[in-house]
Amino acid sequence: MSSTYGNRIKLSIFGQSHGPAIGMTLDNVPAGLPVDFEKLQEFLNRRAPGQNDISTPRREEDRPEFLSGIVNGYTCGAPIAAVIHNTNTRSSDYEELKDRPRPGHADYTAQIKYAGYQDAAGGGHFSGRLTAPMCIAGGLCKQWLEAKGIRIGAHIVSIAGITDEPVCLDWVHPQLDLINKDFPVLNPEAGQKMREAIASARSEGDSVGGLIECVVTGLPAGIGDPMFDGMESRIAQIVYGIPAVKGLSFGTGFSGSYMLGSENNDAFAVKDGRIVTETNHCGGILGGITTGMPLVFEVAIKPTPSISKQQQTISLMNMQTRTLQVKGRHDPCIVPRAVPVIEAAAAIAIFDAIMA
Amino acid sequence: MSSTYGNRIKLSIFGQSHGPAIGMTLDNVPAGLPVDFEKLQEFLNRRAPGQNDISTPRREEDRPEFLSGIVNGYTCGAPIAAVIHNTNTRSSDYEELKDRPRPGHADYTAQIKYAGYQDAAGGGHFSGRLTAPMCIAGGLCKQWLEAKGIRIGAHIVSIAGITDEPVCLDWVHPQLDLINKDFPVLNPEAGQKMREAIASARSEGDSVGGLIECVVTGLPAGIGDPMFDGMESRIAQIVYGIPAVKGLSFGTGFSGSYMLGSENNDAFAVKDGRIVTETNHCGGILGGITTGMPLVFEVAIKPTPSISKQQQTISLMNMQTRTLQVKGRHDPCIVPRAVPVIEAAAAIAIFDAIMA
Amino acid sequence: MSSTYGNRIKLSIFGQSHGPAIGMTLDNVPAGLPVDFEKLQEFLNRRAPGQNDISTPRREEDRPEFLSGIVNGYTCGAPIAAVIHNTNTRSSDYEELKDRPRPGHADYTAQIKYAGYQDAAGGGHFSGRLTAPMCIAGGLCKQWLEAKGIRIGAHIVSIAGITDEPVCLDWVHPQLDLINKDFPVLNPEAGQKMREAIASARSEGDSVGGLIECVVTGLPAGIGDPMFDGMESRIAQIVYGIPAVKGLSFGTGFSGSYMLGSENNDAFAVKDGRIVTETNHCGGILGGITTGMPLVFEVAIKPTPSISKQQQTISLMNMQTRTLQVKGRHDPCIVPRAVPVIEAAAAIAIFDAIMA
Amino acid sequence: MSSTYGNRIKLSIFGQSHGPAIGMTLDNVPAGLPVDFEKLQEFLNRRAPGQNDISTPRREEDRPEFLSGIVNGYTCGAPIAAVIHNTNTRSSDYEELKDRPRPGHADYTAQIKYAGYQDAAGGGHFSGRLTAPMCIAGGLCKQWLEAKGIRIGAHIVSIAGITDEPVCLDWVHPQLDLINKDFPVLNPEAGQKMREAIASARSEGDSVGGLIECVVTGLPAGIGDPMFDGMESRIAQIVYGIPAVKGLSFGTGFSGSYMLGSENNDAFAVKDGRIVTETNHCGGILGGITTGMPLVFEVAIKPTPSISKQQQTISLMNMQTRTLQVKGRHDPCIVPRAVPVIEAAAAIAIFDAIMA
Repeated sequence: MSSTYGNRIKLSIFGQSHGPAIGMTLDNVPAGLPVDFEKLQEFLNRRAPGQNDISTPRREEDRPEFLSGIVNGYTCGAPIAAVIHNTNTRSSDYEELKDRPRPGHADYTAQIKYAGYQDAAGGGHFSGRLTAPMCIAGGLCKQWLEAKGIRIGAHIVSIAGITDEPVCLDWVHPQLDLINKDFPVLNPEAGQKMREAIASARSEGDSVGGLIECVVTGLPAGIGDPMFDGMESRIAQIVYGIPAVKGLSFGTGFSGSYMLGSENNDAFAVKDGRIVTETNHCGGILGGITTGMPLVFEVAIKPTPSISKQQQTISLMNMQTRTLQVKGRHDPCIVPRAVPVIEAAAAIAIFDAIMA
Repeated sequence: MSSTYGNRIKLSIFGQSHGPAIGMTLDNVPAGLPVDFEKLQEFLNRRAPGQNDISTPRREEDRPEFLSGIVNGYTCGAPIAAVIHNTNTRSSDYEELKDRPRPGHADYTAQIKYAGYQDAAGGGHFSGRLTAPMCIAGGLCKQWLEAKGIRIGAHIVSIAGITDEPVCLDWVHPQLDLINKDFPVLNPEAGQKMREAIASARSEGDSVGGLIECVVTGLPAGIGDPMFDGMESRIAQIVYGIPAVKGLSFGTGFSGSYMLGSENNDAFAVKDGRIVTETNHCGGILGGITTGMPLVFEVAIKPTPSISKQQQTISLMNMQTRTLQVKGRHDPCIVPRAVPVIEAAAAIAIFDAIMA
Repeated sequence: MSSTYGNRIKLSIFGQSHGPAIGMTLDNVPAGLPVDFEKLQEFLNRRAPGQNDISTPRREEDRPEFLSGIVNGYTCGAPIAAVIHNTNTRSSDYEELKDRPRPGHADYTAQIKYAGYQDAAGGGHFSGRLTAPMCIAGGLCKQWLEAKGIRIGAHIVSIAGITDEPVCLDWVHPQLDLINKDFPVLNPEAGQKMREAIASARSEGDSVGGLIECVVTGLPAGIGDPMFDGMESRIAQIVYGIPAVKGLSFGTGFSGSYMLGSENNDAFAVKDGRIVTETNHCGGILGGITTGMPLVFEVAIKPTPSISKQQQTISLMNMQTRTLQVKGRHDPCIVPRAVPVIEAAAAIAIFDAIMA
Repeated sequence: MSSTYGNRIKLSIFGQSHGPAIGMTLDNVPAGLPVDFEKLQEFLNRRAPGQNDISTPRREEDRPEFLSGIVNGYTCGAPIAAVIHNTNTRSSDYEELKDRPRPGHADYTAQIKYAGYQDAAGGGHFSGRLTAPMCIAGGLCKQWLEAKGIRIGAHIVSIAGITDEPVCLDWVHPQLDLINKDFPVLNPEAGQKMREAIASARSEGDSVGGLIECVVTGLPAGIGDPMFDGMESRIAQIVYGIPAVKGLSFGTGFSGSYMLGSENNDAFAVKDGRIVTETNHCGGILGGITTGMPLVFEVAIKPTPSISKQQQTISLMNMQTRTLQVKGRHDPCIVPRAVPVIEAAAAIAIFDAIMA
């Protein structure tokens, strides 16, 4: 109930944006899996704030300290625990918000649910900062999946309505491996326009959202379970645990609902001795179970709710309308930093499913 | 794991399409909740096959027998178990499919996962028929939520690209209550065109898909949990357990990703002494927790994969390409019958969350 | 949350003593496991009432009807569901009890928990009759474990203070296989005295309890998990779900607490090329994980609370002391019938652990 | 799945004896519960090593650092995380043990389960040191229960066969509050003899075990669930997660199995307007649900397996018999330090049940 995920592995995430530390425990991981700490740090750096000119100026090292579960570079079978200490906190930015909830944030709903006891500073446990421990767990799972030939990559499909080009299923990982990880698009020109849209939103104290596509290759057929533990359900539960996600689809998804059955069905075929489908409209999942084709899903990220533009809210104390100008340091677009988080979520869900 | 859902309540669904019976158990429901069996049957009839000219000619009564958990019309605190006996099975329709998986179905993935031991007849445990026990559980939860003033309604947003008109948030339930439950659209003209599109697809041995919008009103603010047990995650896990669902979004969802933060954020306001938001782009959920505004989500249903048009598949035995013509009785469009199933899923997810 | 057990498999038990049916669902069992229905029925018969002169005269066939999950004698990967219809119910025996709770029964606690809505007839969901579905699940798991060379047997250690002889670890299963399953003791003379003690208690309208020892052989080393999912915790959770169990110990258990460390520690040794321990005081479990030696535990069963002797209770209506004479048909000693139930519980717990 | 406990709250324990830190996360605790850190530290001190002449000379502060979940002395609704840094580690003591498993320890079973990747130093994740984070969680739950009038106390029933006097149900908490918490017995003379038995065992390089009785008062009737989530099952699952526990009974437990039904049944009565039972042989639990009388259970602790006396083991490398002398710093009797751990386990189980 709440910050714990997984059927086989148990991921538990803790921490508040401006508390002493954030972290995670990951239980029930098999013993003997190697951990490449450098590679993990590279992965975490993709999400970390302050990497480039378009993200929040708050800088955190996001360097995890492992407290348990790994000995001499290998998992030891005991729960893995890791923390990231919060070094750069400015909780005074947020005092006003206890009375005047920010539109688009969990300030109001947390106030109702926790009766005022919630940690309001920086969004507390609802902060996007909590995606850092998710990336620790996900970065580890990603390494372990890669060792089995399963690769996970994501790119920006659109920001502010400017669209990247679609991945080509035949070349998906070479494509995704070559792109700039700071701003992962396939078409650099589209990427440049997206950056300009972000800069423009920032200059007006506004923000933009976007879409991310994630592709998993190398998955064997037969992974996942029927009904509520199908791959779609498993991925959905964790992806919707990422702040700002408001939509998720698999394969042709929403546009598939406009197609005829004869168009949307993927014909089976044999290619190089393997069973494949001629198309992959189902996104690599039938009946909740992987087909062996790339697993493909798309995620809708809402525009960052923290904007410096003046907004209308209310005072919870006196129930009067108030204007609010959100202070603090915020990304005008979190989509680029959300890309590795989506990869992490996919890695955790798939590693959990594959363990079953 | 697989066919079990819920944090507080535990819903377990069992059965295969052409086995002796399908059913469900629902554990941890409080004692003393009244059950209106007639109302439940009316709800189940909305999903049952053979209701009208556009659905499958297979007729099943879908009349549940309650084995436990209800005494004298009230829940008694013990697990509720109910079964529907399968009376009208024709398993010989499906013999060919063990070798030649139907495109768009779980035949192939089940074959891989269960190594040929799966019940292939009629899709077995993967059949849409398993949504009947989900509707038993959901129909009960819906009654219990209604007693708390929480109402759940859904309508067809589009079929084959023909769109219904949007619900008006101020009038959502009076609107939804008045519409024809057999084919639930707000605009009868659009409904007529949808019916024609379905008839046309059928006449060509093809099928169509569509979108369903579900709205929950009367929810108090403060329901749901952060991260992986937010309302989005809870609803997503069960909705993606419904066969043919390939997309899900909340509030403005995918289109929200094209908006500016200043447009997409919902300003807080006070109306009749209650805190509301001026718009409801977030679909009634912030930080995974209900705002007290209507909870709104949209579901993409793929076109029925069972079509009588000739398709390409392979023989699993000899790995040769084969053509396949799916026999059996199938809906050219399951969207109308999926509407109560979506309502059921929402009811179960919300009842579970409200119990916490 | 109540009647669901298991980490990997999910056992859900439903039904009330005098309701239409009792049953179980067992989810997440692998496909392709064979089911020997005759052998299962023999196992169920060991628990069924009315087998001999010392048990309750209520006769039930206890013949399960399988609704799903098994096709052509093999599990198909879908949840297994089975029911036993209640054919011989006499609910008028129990009307008085709604006001006057029986000492030693759950009548009072159920009344408080369920506010009077509980099914009081025959103990409802708290009845020993609910061990029948546990035996369906356990009988299946026992078969599947036997196919892996893992055997489970139990015998009566004592009834009314009369003790059987201890099992010899070297001969445990030949011993347990040869004994009379209706009244499973190793020493027939002790068994005869136990029967006399039971008959004597019955003639006085009283009842007796006893101890049961369960031994599992053929378990590989390395099964189980640290801490809360150690083999002791897993077995304890299910064994304490059996009505009338009030004590449980592993290996030397309580008497081990009187020994010196040098006496109680089991020295490691090599025998026939295998690592063994010279003694088995730990009951085959160290750190929650199996050692490869027989897993041994002992269960304390309280004397049947239903006695026809006059007892003191109160009227819940007027809070006055009342005398009560329990009517209905009851066993003066449930220990013999509890033996297969303990085996079933062990089988479920071990099958679940071995699946992990 | 190992180190996670709870239906409503989710306790997750991590760490290895000689790793950087041990700790716990406790998820789903309501917001607004006060935390008395001093009182918590006093509780933790009762378990901490090096407190008196009879325990291990290893000294650890056992001072938890809270990383999240508590703001200004109140729970904030987010998961609580706390760590204790290991300051005094001597892992070279344990090198020999990787080849030569200690009798009575998890060295061998961990070696099999984790294929040599386990953290062997000091028992790793299997160490009694992991009871410290359990005491953090339990100490918090104990405070929160006390605020509801629910009190938990335990005392040593016997060590090395020397028995304390039984608690008097009418005076249980005044009795338990007054006793010396370092060595909690009701009869100081018996306590003195126990200390002598411990000293004698130590002087011979040996160890002793014992029994602990735990009593919970102030519990309302109606807490707990039927079957596998009855209070016995809930308590058993966590108590058996404590290293060295090999037996557990409720109320009259094992000795109750020798009684007649008419003796063991607890007659209902009314006392001061409240429904009580004249005796409390059932240990305050009927049908898994609390009766409102004190909840009473007894735990058997095996003699510390770490003894300096010479023992027989084998070399895993060459399968030869070897003698072993366990080095390191160990308690000749862990029973006194286990008393607060048992209280902690009870507090966690009861808090979880009461939240449901």
